[in-house]
Amino acid sequence: MNILITAGGTSEKIDNVRSITNHSTGRLGKTIAETFLAQGHLVTYVTTPQAVRPAKQPELNILEIETTKELETTLLEQFAQTAFDSIIHSMAVSDFTTETTLSEETFIDQLSEKIGTLGDLNDTRQLKEHIQISLDEMGETVQDQKKIPSKTDRLLLFLKKNPKIIAMLREKQPQAILVGFKLLVGVSEAELIQVGRSILAKNQCDFILANDLETIQGEQHKGILINALGQTQTAQTKAEIAQLIVNKVEEKWRNQ
Amino acid sequence: MNILITAGGTSEKIDNVRSITNHSTGRLGKTIAETFLAQGHLVTYVTTPQAVRPAKQPELNILEIETTKELETTLLEQFAQTAFDSIIHSMAVSDFTTETTLSEETFIDQLSEKIGTLGDLNDTRQLKEHIQISLDEMGETVQDQKKIPSKTDRLLLFLKKNPKIIAMLREKQPQAILVGFKLLVGVSEAELIQVGRSILAKNQCDFILANDLETIQGEQHKGILINALGQTQTAQTKAEIAQLIVNKVEEKWRNQ
Repeated sequence: MNILITAGGTSEKIDNVRSITNHSTGRLGKTIAETFLAQGHLVTYVTTPQAVRPAKQPELNILEIETTKELETTLLEQFAQTAFDSIIHSMAVSDFTTETTLSEETFIDQLSEKIGTLGDLNDTRQLKEHIQISLDEMGETVQDQKKIPSKTDRLLLFLKKNPKIIAMLREKQPQAILVGFKLLVGVSEAELIQVGRSILAKNQCDFILANDLETIQGEQHKGILINALGQTQTAQTKAEIAQLIVNKVEEKWRNQ
Repeated sequence: MNILITAGGTSEKIDNVRSITNHSTGRLGKTIAETFLAQGHLVTYVTTPQAVRPAKQPELNILEIETTKELETTLLEQFAQTAFDSIIHSMAVSDFTTETTLSEETFIDQLSEKIGTLGDLNDTRQLKEHIQISLDEMGETVQDQKKIPSKTDRLLLFLKKNPKIIAMLREKQPQAILVGFKLLVGVSEAELIQVGRSILAKNQCDFILANDLETIQGEQHKGILINALGQTQTAQTKAEIAQLIVNKVEEKWRNQ
């Protein structure tokens, strides 16, 4: 099979020396890639600079990205060339990218000036609309900031929503067996499964691997694989998760 | 001599899976440490998880921190035990730490509610004060967010100023030969030197190494070492910068 795996975590630049990073060691993605490679499959592996990765080998093609935007571009290039048999989307993708950064002083000046021109502020509904319009204008103003200002006691960072990569995968690769990932923090198993099922349905995945940061510790890594019928199977280590995903993807591929 | 070196870049948590990272490979700090070690000095090396570091050796003590707050605590512990002969503060330290994160909707609700209760908003000076008070209240409200909300089109991240580590160094270690670092981005050499001199004076450093991100490329690394008289010497590589700093610190130590 021809497999695409995403792994690691994206970063979004704040300025030339700072960024917002989604933590992911890439270790689970690496183990999944190695397990597919050991079965003789071809792997295209999209990862990030800080993440660990499988050793170079002929059946492995590694591509590196940093931001969610770069991930989108790289995936669209791949999808224009290749119809993958399966996509394993384990990368931790930033939901938000940086829009603008303002010192508190600039923020207050701009906000008061903008909402001050908009009419009667003593009406709550109007006031909310005025703040909304002002935030939109401030957020969309391109800042020429190579390095954000440090001479203020408080900064306000505007973050705007990134495109949802997982939603694009099924749209562009309808033939692929699609495995999505959902990481939550400190929830019950019932909630983890419920959120996993809803994401599977929403993004038309074949499987979702749902996991909780609080049950990950080195190789120990509890993962619940949910299929399109909502059925679950649980693995306790990264190696077990990788083997479970490879088995399920191979089985589905043989039966289709 | 007994030398303390800080290197790498701090991170500030946004939630359990995201943080704001100050990029620094730690390579210059590593080279400086290796140059001091090669001269037979003792080195205490404070660094961050992602940064490169010198190989383990008997004369080297490595301490790891992540946030600016942890850096402060670790340095204060060291300073309580040891009077260092020299401190080389090359770590990229976050000027700001995360205070709170609000969805745009929550931000607008809270701001309009807060400023709505404060009286006449059609007076600009009063409006500014109301916004200021509201931001303070919002920023200081502790959020119980293990993972920040993703169901919004825009997030507002409040960042507040961290303690200035460099200012604390001279205060706590008056005997140390203190070398500060200043990284700017895309400025003229004249501006770089002017900013370097002002930071040297403000923080009572003995030397400042001023550098510009745009003249750093692998081993090539232009650095201007400024002394307390404002005199400058320029190095072109990390190895040259390290040698220059070691020479100047040793010279000053012999002459004091």
